[in-house]
Amino acid sequence: MCHTLKRFIKLHLVLFLLIGHSAATAQNALVLQTDFGVKDAAVATMRGVAFGVSPGLGIFDLTHEIPPYNIWEGAYRLEQTARYWPAGTVFVSVVDPGVGTDRKPVVLKTKSGHYFVTPDNGTLTLVSESLGIESVREIDEAVHRRADSGKSYTFHGRDVFAYTGAKLAAGIITFEEVGQELPPHVVKIERPEAAYRDNGVYGYVPILDIRYGNVWTNIDRELFGKLNADIGDVFLVTVRYNDTVLFSDEVPYVRTFGDVNVGEPLLYMNSLDKLSIAINMDDFAGTYGVQAGPDYKIEVRKRGTGN
Amino acid sequence: MCHTLKRFIKLHLVLFLLIGHSAATAQNALVLQTDFGVKDAAVATMRGVAFGVSPGLGIFDLTHEIPPYNIWEGAYRLEQTARYWPAGTVFVSVVDPGVGTDRKPVVLKTKSGHYFVTPDNGTLTLVSESLGIESVREIDEAVHRRADSGKSYTFHGRDVFAYTGAKLAAGIITFEEVGQELPPHVVKIERPEAAYRDNGVYGYVPILDIRYGNVWTNIDRELFGKLNADIGDVFLVTVRYNDTVLFSDEVPYVRTFGDVNVGEPLLYMNSLDKLSIAINMDDFAGTYGVQAGPDYKIEVRKRGTGN
Amino acid sequence: MCHTLKRFIKLHLVLFLLIGHSAATAQNALVLQTDFGVKDAAVATMRGVAFGVSPGLGIFDLTHEIPPYNIWEGAYRLEQTARYWPAGTVFVSVVDPGVGTDRKPVVLKTKSGHYFVTPDNGTLTLVSESLGIESVREIDEAVHRRADSGKSYTFHGRDVFAYTGAKLAAGIITFEEVGQELPPHVVKIERPEAAYRDNGVYGYVPILDIRYGNVWTNIDRELFGKLNADIGDVFLVTVRYNDTVLFSDEVPYVRTFGDVNVGEPLLYMNSLDKLSIAINMDDFAGTYGVQAGPDYKIEVRKRGTGN
Repeated sequence: MCHTLKRFIKLHLVLFLLIGHSAATAQNALVLQTDFGVKDAAVATMRGVAFGVSPGLGIFDLTHEIPPYNIWEGAYRLEQTARYWPAGTVFVSVVDPGVGTDRKPVVLKTKSGHYFVTPDNGTLTLVSESLGIESVREIDEAVHRRADSGKSYTFHGRDVFAYTGAKLAAGIITFEEVGQELPPHVVKIERPEAAYRDNGVYGYVPILDIRYGNVWTNIDRELFGKLNADIGDVFLVTVRYNDTVLFSDEVPYVRTFGDVNVGEPLLYMNSLDKLSIAINMDDFAGTYGVQAGPDYKIEVRKRGTGN
Repeated sequence: MCHTLKRFIKLHLVLFLLIGHSAATAQNALVLQTDFGVKDAAVATMRGVAFGVSPGLGIFDLTHEIPPYNIWEGAYRLEQTARYWPAGTVFVSVVDPGVGTDRKPVVLKTKSGHYFVTPDNGTLTLVSESLGIESVREIDEAVHRRADSGKSYTFHGRDVFAYTGAKLAAGIITFEEVGQELPPHVVKIERPEAAYRDNGVYGYVPILDIRYGNVWTNIDRELFGKLNADIGDVFLVTVRYNDTVLFSDEVPYVRTFGDVNVGEPLLYMNSLDKLSIAINMDDFAGTYGVQAGPDYKIEVRKRGTGN
Repeated sequence: MCHTLKRFIKLHLVLFLLIGHSAATAQNALVLQTDFGVKDAAVATMRGVAFGVSPGLGIFDLTHEIPPYNIWEGAYRLEQTARYWPAGTVFVSVVDPGVGTDRKPVVLKTKSGHYFVTPDNGTLTLVSESLGIESVREIDEAVHRRADSGKSYTFHGRDVFAYTGAKLAAGIITFEEVGQELPPHVVKIERPEAAYRDNGVYGYVPILDIRYGNVWTNIDRELFGKLNADIGDVFLVTVRYNDTVLFSDEVPYVRTFGDVNVGEPLLYMNSLDKLSIAINMDDFAGTYGVQAGPDYKIEVRKRGTGN
């Protein structure tokens, strides 16, 4: 009986280890972000690959509505989200206009203990600063690419990023097994400071108030004050995508949307005390094709005074 | 060996309790509803907070496409959904135009055993009636607010509602631990009965046929009959948002959409036998800015007879 | 003590079986596809029913943005997705214009070991070919319909398809228990081959490039070559929905979008080497109401040569 008991205990330990392992692999979430939208099957194939790696894995969405190829907005959404997930969470972000070029597939581990699996194309600009770089590793695609991908066509979001992220979140590979360590740097998107010069203030669009299409700038109240701006004054506002003018017109600086007629543009201070541009009861960003990012440049010059 | 066995059994019971507990905490779903959309990171931060509370928790979406601040539609979607989830399910609904005012953060437990975590602003109008009020408790924000929130800014959807809902669903707190019990009442949105007077019928828009933008009313076939309505008759239809006229024109009462030209409005009886308004091959609600709710008022008066 | 030990072991085996069963039921994913959108509660009620069947079940979305009643696109998305999910995955697809008619509710088991729960209305056209038919069974609605549905109204997506799919994925019923076996055939949507005749090429729209609204055809480079097409040549392009003309105009065949002015249509070869139609910086499909499917027919005839 002693022998029986020992065998029983051994069997139990094995079973517990199995159960324990299965439980452990479900502890770290996998959070997906793309610019794919959800109308086609691309995101669902990423979920399928991740589920196939580990059926117990918690698979979540950040958003899939990043505007196509807008790396900046991807960076911004990661920054807004990451700190609300526990350490160990693995974010996979695929906004990848450079697929097929030499941008590196990487995993960033931040000092906060979060992981970011992404092409290193600027997506990590903000979280690398706010959460701190612990280490960066290049994904070894020879090892971490789905077995039956790559014959003719590799969809990196699915075959490399979701696949590697799922293995990391599930504890099937360690961070060290991702691939070789790189110098602790990531590709950064340049962000010029907002500035005053020659009777104008200059900034960019860090983010849209996306549900309403309002354009937020990085020009704060103090800087705008250098134009001696008073409520009711009219300004010449120009919005450019790099050198292309998207909007240029006179716009009044008002207290609330209702101070202009329906359908007319306005300048106002948003809840973060930054200068913002809107259309009363309409979508400024959609109307003029404005998105978020340092490439969307704002110029505000004093033109006249209000009535 | 007897001693060894006893220790082994004790150890086992502890392990089983741990595993059992972990399994138990995953039994109740957390179902999220907001008016935030999914283009930005707000919903993802709510998911992150809930996951951080309990990694094994089932986290689901009802919808995040409630029109901004439309409390009525939030109430309606809860009513449509709740009965299809098992007792014990915790719904978190955040449609909260009054954030920062004195509306109370509450948890409603219904007689059906469902929980609703929400600002008490009318969101509970329908489920409180259909599922019955078992008890209402006010969320004690001093206890149930995320530890590192509240320094400068609290996002209630994430820091109070998702956080409290997740703890309740995971069994980390009991319903009694939510906060003090309130009288068994919730804030209700007033819903006037549809009525006939002076050759007109009057009602409101309980819900849109949202995929097509058709406007459903609470005017049923019998009430409409008081206008001696025949197929082909033309009516003067007015749609108001409170006192603002959104639409006012002559509209024929027809059997099917194809009875009017493409792009023209029509009156018809929907599958619930309620009078409804549409545009053939277009979106009536979107075109005229009509949403669901008692504030969207319908007036139908007889004008002439069809050709 | 021997007796105690035996009882302990027996208790353990029961507990392990319970735990093991609970773990096993979570191994197969349930993947939902509909044309319902996510603005109302329909999808959430399907999730609720599935969760109620088995709280540990992994419930995922393929997409809910299939255009209303577009069975073809549902078929196409299943085809794109299924192979990236492990064998045993249960797909529930509800694009069901014929609800209430005699289309059969079925479960297809493919040779690859995937399950598809759907009305047999053409949705299975593509996966039945690519993954192979192992067996088809008709869902016995007398057995597999939610207990409290069917009194007055049954929502098949929720009460039959999601309910049966969840039971199958959770291992609560076997495939054999779904209902009687049918002959190994499914309803197929006819797909005419692209063809050349009388100085024209004829095809249909297998799928849209949905994020941009570009229309892809099944006309490949070789077939198009029969028109002696050169870059810069202008063609008369006609798009029909069955016999209704949606678009008919002269369109140049160009190398890149930028070869025509903003807002003008163009013909180009897509990444799959198929002839495609777009508007530079705009949405061709949305503008002209083109969707995917064999009912959307393309005719391209040579008209003149470019400048």
